[in-house]
Amino acid sequence: MAVFEKLTHICSATESGLSSTLFNSPPFQSFTVFLLEISHSPFFNPPPPSGSGFAPIDRIVSLELPLVDPEAESFKSGSNGAENEVVVAGFVLFFPNYSTFLAKPGFYVEDLFVRECYRRKGFGRMLLSAVAAQAVKLGYGRVEWVVLDWNVNAIKFYEKMGAKVLPEWRICRLTGDQLEAYRDAM
Amino acid sequence: MAVFEKLTHICSATESGLSSTLFNSPPFQSFTVFLLEISHSPFFNPPPPSGSGFAPIDRIVSLELPLVDPEAESFKSGSNGAENEVVVAGFVLFFPNYSTFLAKPGFYVEDLFVRECYRRKGFGRMLLSAVAAQAVKLGYGRVEWVVLDWNVNAIKFYEKMGAKVLPEWRICRLTGDQLEAYRDAM
Repeated sequence: MAVFEKLTHICSATESGLSSTLFNSPPFQSFTVFLLEISHSPFFNPPPPSGSGFAPIDRIVSLELPLVDPEAESFKSGSNGAENEVVVAGFVLFFPNYSTFLAKPGFYVEDLFVRECYRRKGFGRMLLSAVAAQAVKLGYGRVEWVVLDWNVNAIKFYEKMGAKVLPEWRICRLTGDQLEAYRDAM
Repeated sequence: MAVFEKLTHICSATESGLSSTLFNSPPFQSFTVFLLEISHSPFFNPPPPSGSGFAPIDRIVSLELPLVDPEAESFKSGSNGAENEVVVAGFVLFFPNYSTFLAKPGFYVEDLFVRECYRRKGFGRMLLSAVAAQAVKLGYGRVEWVVLDWNVNAIKFYEKMGAKVLPEWRICRLTGDQLEAYRDAM
């Protein structure tokens, strides 16, 4: 994703950094990830972990062309109980935000990513739809995310999904040494 | 705030809406508000509620001109134990966000508001600094918020505080009927 967004210079994530900061809370209360897992044979879903409040969503998709994943081995995510392996094809990471104008929570989508060989098959729409459906289910007021203004394909895709791109708002970011300067501010 | 931002048409908050969706979690884990309370006489701070992990920050400010608050009665927030009343002069509402590029949480500031008669006295800076200091204390990587591109005074203020305004990113928003359409999407 950092490569695609031409932002590798600000990407400093490591596996241990991600492990220690994610997956510490029940789904939807804080940072939440929907993983897109794909297999050539049907899934036998285990019951959802007790108290999670969320059962995996199962979908059968028929593709016109056979799908070849050159990195399947690296992205293997265990077995589905049948003979074909399960591969992670994408993810969406989101968390609650809040609008005082609506007096309601919403979801903010930090990342929506589908691996290259799985693109243009409706999987991105599937991931974002799952977040939107969950927001409606919880009575939330908005789903928001950001897009780079030169990413016209993404903008078209988001608008087709019913989103509005807000032209007037700009993101302000305090980070690095400028943030560190506030250590003893209060 | 909605009046100032020329956004009253999208403001549908009510007191009961706010009450039922805020103040349900320990500070910093979810939606958090720092209230700016002002009194002419010193505060006698009670000990912080056990387990909250946050003690009120106390500051003495000397102003050149006497401060007249025509709405003091409406914004009264109890007594500070002395003879002068305590008034709410502003607030900042923020909550955790997450950067996969940093593999770290941050804070997103949804609202920063100081009531009109208290402006241009450093209170806005005080509220935002308190959020930034808390972010540093927790080892977080960023503090972010948004600004309207025509609000040049705010932009100057934020840049003086060390923030960068990101020119390329645009907010996408799925709300109202367009969001509701996803109720049965999954």
